[in-house]
Amino acid sequence: MDTASGSGAPRSAGFVTPRTARFTDALRLRCGVVMSDYELVYETYGTLDAARSNAVLVCHALNASHHVAGRYERDPANVGWWDNMIGPGKPLDTDRFFVVGVNNLGGCHGSTGPMSVNPATGRPWGGDFPVVTVEDWVATQARLADHLGIERFAAVMGGSLGAMQALAWTYLNPGRVRHAVLIACAPNLSAQNIAFNEIARQAILTDPDFHGGHYGGHDTRPTRGLRVARMVGHITYLSDDVMAEKFGRQLRHGRPTYGFDTEFEIESYLRHQGGKFSEYFDANTYLRITRALDYYDPAFEHGGDLAAALAPARANFLVISFTTDWRFSPERSREIVKALLDNHGNVTYAEIDAPHGHDAFLLEDARYHRLVAAYFDRIAGERPEPRTNADERG
Amino acid sequence: MDTASGSGAPRSAGFVTPRTARFTDALRLRCGVVMSDYELVYETYGTLDAARSNAVLVCHALNASHHVAGRYERDPANVGWWDNMIGPGKPLDTDRFFVVGVNNLGGCHGSTGPMSVNPATGRPWGGDFPVVTVEDWVATQARLADHLGIERFAAVMGGSLGAMQALAWTYLNPGRVRHAVLIACAPNLSAQNIAFNEIARQAILTDPDFHGGHYGGHDTRPTRGLRVARMVGHITYLSDDVMAEKFGRQLRHGRPTYGFDTEFEIESYLRHQGGKFSEYFDANTYLRITRALDYYDPAFEHGGDLAAALAPARANFLVISFTTDWRFSPERSREIVKALLDNHGNVTYAEIDAPHGHDAFLLEDARYHRLVAAYFDRIAGERPEPRTNADERG
Repeated sequence: MDTASGSGAPRSAGFVTPRTARFTDALRLRCGVVMSDYELVYETYGTLDAARSNAVLVCHALNASHHVAGRYERDPANVGWWDNMIGPGKPLDTDRFFVVGVNNLGGCHGSTGPMSVNPATGRPWGGDFPVVTVEDWVATQARLADHLGIERFAAVMGGSLGAMQALAWTYLNPGRVRHAVLIACAPNLSAQNIAFNEIARQAILTDPDFHGGHYGGHDTRPTRGLRVARMVGHITYLSDDVMAEKFGRQLRHGRPTYGFDTEFEIESYLRHQGGKFSEYFDANTYLRITRALDYYDPAFEHGGDLAAALAPARANFLVISFTTDWRFSPERSREIVKALLDNHGNVTYAEIDAPHGHDAFLLEDARYHRLVAAYFDRIAGERPEPRTNADERG
Repeated sequence: MDTASGSGAPRSAGFVTPRTARFTDALRLRCGVVMSDYELVYETYGTLDAARSNAVLVCHALNASHHVAGRYERDPANVGWWDNMIGPGKPLDTDRFFVVGVNNLGGCHGSTGPMSVNPATGRPWGGDFPVVTVEDWVATQARLADHLGIERFAAVMGGSLGAMQALAWTYLNPGRVRHAVLIACAPNLSAQNIAFNEIARQAILTDPDFHGGHYGGHDTRPTRGLRVARMVGHITYLSDDVMAEKFGRQLRHGRPTYGFDTEFEIESYLRHQGGKFSEYFDANTYLRITRALDYYDPAFEHGGDLAAALAPARANFLVISFTTDWRFSPERSREIVKALLDNHGNVTYAEIDAPHGHDAFLLEDARYHRLVAAYFDRIAGERPEPRTNADERG
C-alpha cells in the first residue's frame, strides 16, 4: 500500500500494553447518576511531541475497545481492531502522531462497567450500572486527555458509533479538537436502526439467564440472547451484495437436508459470529451501547436543527461514507456535511464506492486508506495555533 | 374505490365458514416423509360456474391462513387477511369468481401440522413434523382442487411466499393454471433474506421452552423466541421510509428515561406485534414456513437457469412489485419476468410506486388494486379453451 506519509512501508505498532487511569472527581452522567470513582483502560501508540500537538483520539464503536493497534506480547494473535489503519507508516501514522485508544465507560474490556464493583454495595453493578451516553463518553475522554496532558487533539477520529463520539467532541469541547474524522457516521439513528437495536436488546432481556442484568450473581450469562443480538447486528454490517457474493445460496451439503441444522453458508457464518461474540462480550454492556446509539441525537435539544446543534464546532472535518452502507448510508453523512456547510465550516467529504456495506470502515480499501493518509499528512504539516481561552466552552 | 368490474360498490364476502377436506392417498414429501393421512382447512367465496372455469386459488404467505376474506359469525372481528382485495365488487370479484383459500400443510390454523396427532405415535407431531416445501404445498393444493372438482384454475394468486406457490403451480401443473398473479415475489431468497430467517429460527430454537419442538409435552411454548422472530420479520416488511414516517425517533415520554423499557414508538410497535403473534402462532410452523422460503429455488435443479425451470409453464402472468420493497425488491420480480420472456411467455409486469415496502401487497393502494381488478376483468371476459391431455404433466 502506498501512503502519503514519508515513513516507508507500513509496519505494526508492535507490542503494546494497556494502562489504567483512575478518576475520583465526581462525574454526573446524563441519566443523573453520579460516578464518584471510575477507571478507564487505554493504550497509546507513538510519541507525544514536545508541543503536545500531535495527539489523535480514536473512539471505538459497538464491540471494540482501547486495543486499536498492535498486539500483546502474551497474546500475539490479539491484534488491534484498527491495525490496518494505525501504525508506523499507516494512514494514521504513529511515527508522526501520538494515538490514544480508550475503552469507554460502561464497557467490558477493563474500564469501569457493569462487571465492575459498585462501591455503594460492594457487589458488581450488573443490571444497576447506569445507562451511559455518547456525551458521557466524551466527558470521560476529556478527563483522560487532561490526565495525559493533552490540551487539544490534532484529531478525534472514529467509525460508526466512534464517529458519533468524534462529532460530539467538536461541539462539546470545540477548543480541544483541531480535526474530526467521521467515518460511516450518522447524525442519529433512524427508526429502522433503532428497530434492529431493540430486537437485539429483547433477545437479551428475555433470555431466562439474564436475571434483570444480575446474571453474575446467578453464575450464568445470557449467551443465547447475546448470540441472537450479535447475529442481528451482522445483518446490518454487510451489504446485501457482499452477502450474496460471499455466501449466496450456497448449501453446506450441496443439497437440502430438510432440517434446522446449518444448511446454508450464511447460517454457518452468523452462527459462528454470534457464538464467538457471546463468549467474550458482556450483555449488560451490549444493552448500554445500543442505548447510547439510540439516544444520540445532537439536534434533539435544538428542535431538530442539526446546524444549530453543531454551531459551536470549530474543527475541520473529514467525513467519509461508503456507497453500499445501508446501516449509516451516505445520505446520513451528507446530513452532517450539509449542517456543517450551513455553519460555514471547513469540510472534506468523500463517498467511497465500496461493496462491503457498513463494515467497509474497518477494511483495507486502497482509496479509502489513501484519503485518510492524505488528510493526516495535511494535519502533520500544519503548525497549530496555540489554544486560547476563547476556545473554551467549559 | 373504482374497479373495472361491473358489480357496483365493493362489499364484504360476508360470513364465511371454513371446511375441512381429508386426504388418505399417501403423499411423499420432498424430504422423503410419506403423509398417509392429512387434512386441509379451506374456505371458498363466490360460486363455481357450470363450466368450472372461474376458480381462483389464493395462496398464503408466512403467517396467514385459509381465512382470506369475509368474517366469522361467531368472531366478527376476525376479518380475512386479504379482505380489501377479495369480495363482491372487489379487485378479485367474488360475484364473478369462485375463490379458494387454504391453510397449508404444516400450518397452525387447522390443517395438519405440528400440533396435529402423529398417527404413528398417537401424540402430537411437534418437532417431528416433516419440513415441507413450496412444491409439497402445490401438490396438496392440487389434491384439494381435485376434491373441489376444479380441473383448471382461472388463476392462482399470491403475495410473497404465496406468489412463490403460484409460480410453482405454473411449471408443476401447467395444464391446471390459466393465469398466475405473482405479487411481491422473488425466484428465491437472497443470502440476506435467509439471514433474517435464520435469526428468527435461532431465537426459537434456543428458547429454553422449545424442547426440540416438543414443548406441547412440557406444557409450555417458546413465546420469547417466537416474539423475537416476529420482530425480526417486521423489520423486513416495512420500508425504511415508512418506518421513519410512522415512528421516526418519537419518544413515548417526550424525553429519554435512560432505561430499557419502551422509549421509542418503534419499540412499542415491535413489542406489540411480537407479543400478539407469539400468543397465536405455533413456533414449529414458523420454523417450517421459513425453511420452505429458504429452500424455494426452482432454478436450483437447472444449474441456476430460471428460464429452464419455468419452461413447462403455459399460464399467462401478471407480476407486480413495489418500489420500496427491500425484502423482495422489484429487481427480483424482474428476474422472473425476464425468464418468462426468454421462454416467450405472456407476461404483464407492473412496478407500483408505493412507500410501504413489502407490506404494500396487503394494503389498499388504488393503482395496485385497479391493476388487479383490470386483470381479473380480462380473465372474466375470456372464453377458456377446454383442457386437453397434452397439457398434463403428471
